This record gives sequence, structure tokens and C-alpha cells, in this order.
Amino acid sequence: MTYCVGIQLNRGIVFMSDTRTNSGVDNISTFRKMFTFETPGERSITIMTSGNLATTQAVISLLQERSKRPSDRSPDILHAESMFQVARLIGATLREVIAGHDEAGQRADGAFFATLIVGGQIKGGEPRLYLIYPEGNFIEAGEDTPFFQVGETKYGRPILIRAYDPDMSFEAAIKLLLVSFDSTIKANLSVALPLDWHVYETGSHRNGRIGRVEQGDPYFEVISNGWGGALRDAFAALPDFEMPGRAEPAD
Amino acid sequence: MTYCVGIQLNRGIVFMSDTRTNSGVDNISTFRKMFTFETPGERSITIMTSGNLATTQAVISLLQERSKRPSDRSPDILHAESMFQVARLIGATLREVIAGHDEAGQRADGAFFATLIVGGQIKGGEPRLYLIYPEGNFIEAGEDTPFFQVGETKYGRPILIRAYDPDMSFEAAIKLLLVSFDSTIKANLSVALPLDWHVYETGSHRNGRIGRVEQGDPYFEVISNGWGGALRDAFAALPDFEMPGRAEPAD
Repeated sequence: MTYCVGIQLNRGIVFMSDTRTNSGVDNISTFRKMFTFETPGERSITIMTSGNLATTQAVISLLQERSKRPSDRSPDILHAESMFQVARLIGATLREVIAGHDEAGQRADGAFFATLIVGGQIKGGEPRLYLIYPEGNFIEAGEDTPFFQVGETKYGRPILIRAYDPDMSFEAAIKLLLVSFDSTIKANLSVALPLDWHVYETGSHRNGRIGRVEQGDPYFEVISNGWGGALRDAFAALPDFEMPGRAEPAD
Repeated sequence: MTYCVGIQLNRGIVFMSDTRTNSGVDNISTFRKMFTFETPGERSITIMTSGNLATTQAVISLLQERSKRPSDRSPDILHAESMFQVARLIGATLREVIAGHDEAGQRADGAFFATLIVGGQIKGGEPRLYLIYPEGNFIEAGEDTPFFQVGETKYGRPILIRAYDPDMSFEAAIKLLLVSFDSTIKANLSVALPLDWHVYETGSHRNGRIGRVEQGDPYFEVISNGWGGALRDAFAALPDFEMPGRAEPAD
């Protein structure tokens, strides 16, 4: 499994992804699932991947190769005119890779599927955040749905829904994502540290700060331990249920 | 979908279940998923159901019928000697119902499956809590895994893991379950109020207090609204991430 989140704020977009890949529980590895592309001063694009690792690596390699050998007829993601066109290119590449496996007769009911989160900004346009499906089509984040999750999304969703605020600082957003990742990691063995993050600042048109939270990271420990205590305190602060008088059992 | 939780405490067992059933999103109904059986002063058994409604209703009806017409050769759940035997009987009944559908040629890849939580106490034994699988086999809760969830389990799991305490009061346990149900209801349309609950007190050997939290219940509103605020406060109390100096993007 995997867990990646892209979250749109008024001041930019924050991305975070885990690095665990597994095939069964006895074959686990660490692979980067976040990839950035930039033309400093002109565009910054971040892609996060979930799903079949061979598929996502092929997609990223194709996108990288093509961006080094652009042709006017088929612009690559470093030359596409808008984030919408970038998402279309990435979606088409994803569909192409999956279809290639299928043609080889390797049908395994979705085994080669992958889902991507793509976000960034190109000069002249607004920052955009997309979720790209295995079929190559995609949806865009907006005011009502300002973040996208892929992979093991459920454990970490309630806190995102409750604590998200479009005005929050980048520092608070990374804290929020770490709490969401911590809840997921505690519940699912197939999501694990290290965590990669990237903070894109609106209007900068270049990659922002990029970092990795490693196993044993002191701030992550503070959040992980502190969140348990904070949750228990929050829980204790709510009024207890008042047991009604003994009722007859329903039949 | 469904959400049911059975939670074992030092002082007893607390059960809670939602009541929404759906077949698609445009065919929703309210059905009880919690059923209690008792011989006051001798035993109390609670069953919570998830999965195919026709299957679970057939299982409950068979158990009820048989408990009214017991035979010495095949004891029913009101006459079985131990909770372990009760779980075996229920598991066998569940398997029998599912197999009956399958024989009728109605194979639909798990469509008739159901999973049950069964808990209670029989005089002479300890309180027991079981999770029964569609195959009729089952596992028992213990010190390390003191609660079982069935249905849409993920959203509400982190708070159970963090705030559970075997010494907690029944009042605190119901509060904990309501927080867990609230997180699930907020995230998944197929889980909904009203919620049924039953508090079984160790050594009472009869059904305990039983109640239903209806839509608009003032205490549920306090928990639902208060938990959002409490979570945001807990989140704000954690130290913010400190952004490192600008780093070069990883390649």
C-alpha cells in the first residue's frame, strides 16, 4: 500500500508521500513516490504515485525522457502550456503504460493500475492540484475538496477533514499531514517512514522546500507521542455519557 | 455498509451498532443489527451483524426459532454450556445459511457473506467476545486485542487504539464509541444514526442497559460538535513544524 496527500492552501500546495512498497508482507522496500519537475522561474510540477511500482516508475521515466527530448508536435510536461495540459499528458502516459502491459497479455484485473496526484503552477496560471485515474482521466481539487489522498486513505482522513483550514501556514500544514500519516502508519503496516514532503509556494514558479522525515526524526516523535496524549486529553474533556435508568431490553 | 464495535472492559462488554443498510446509494433503509438473548440470572448473549441482510436476518431467525424449541441432541444458544459453544453454534448457523444460498445456484462471489460479533457471559464462565467469519470459524478478543470492529472499520479505528483503557467506565466507553462512530459517519454515507447500544455488566448474567441514540440526540450533538473543536485544540497545542532552510530539490 501507499499513502500520499496533496493539500491546497491559499499560500501554496503541500505534498507528502510515504516510501514503503510491498508485495506481500515479506517483500518490502523503500522507494521514492514523489517526483518534482521544474523550470525555475517558470513552472514547478510535483507528481506523487500509488499503485503498481513498475507502472509508476515507467510513467515517471517516460515523462523524464520526453522532457529532455521535447518535440514541437507533442509538448512534454516542461513545455505544456498549462497545468491542465500537464495533467492530460501525464494521464495519457499513464494510460499508455497500463495499456502496454495489457497488450502483452498480462491481464491481472487491475494489477498494473496506478493513481497519481499531480500539482503545481505554470507562469500565467493559478496553482492546480489533480487526481489522475488509471484510465488517464482526472479531477481537480477545489474549494470544497481542497485535498487529495491516494493509497490507504481512511485512517488519516478524519483529522484532515476536521483540522484543515485554507489559511493555515505551511508549518501547520506539515504538522497536519504528519498527524494524518501517523494515524495511518499506526494502523497499517504497509505505510511507513521515511516520508517525503514538498512545499510549493504560490507565485514562486520553482520547487519550494523539499525534505524527508526519517525513522527516529525527533519532530515526528514529538507529534506521534504528543498526538496520543492530546487525543486522550481532548477525549477526557468531553462530557461523559449519562447512563439512563435501567430500561427493559428491546425484543 | 455497516459499523459495529464490541469492546471488552474490566467491568463488562459494551456493544454499539449502526442501523443503516443500503443496496446502492439510492436504496437505503434502517434495520436493527444488534440482537440480545438472555436467560436472566444465567446468561446474556449479544450478536451484532454486518454483511448481507438476508443472510444475517436468516441467521438470527434460525437462532431465535431454535432457542424456542430446544432439543437435547443439538443445544441452542440459550442452552449451550459455554460462550465457546455458543460461538460454535452461531458460526455453524451462519455457514449453513450461506451454504444454502450457494446451493441454490446463487453464487455471487461473497455476495451472501456476513460477519458477526458475539459477546456475553454464561454463569460459571468469564465474559467472552468473539468475531465470527462467514466460514463459521471465529477468533476471541483478549488483552492485546480487546475490541472487534466489523463493517467500515478504518475511519473510527485510530481513536479506539489511542483512547481505549480496560479500566474505563461504561459511560466513558459509550463516549469513546460515539466518537468513533461520529468519525465514521462523517466520512461514509453508508453508516448512519440511529445507533443501538448495550452495556453488559460482568457477573450480572442478564442483559444490561440497552438504548438507542436517535438522529438529533442532544448528547450525540455535543460529542459530534465538541469533538471537532477538541481535535482542533489538540492539534493547535502540538508544536508546529520548523521549516528547515531552503534545500536543493532532490533529483
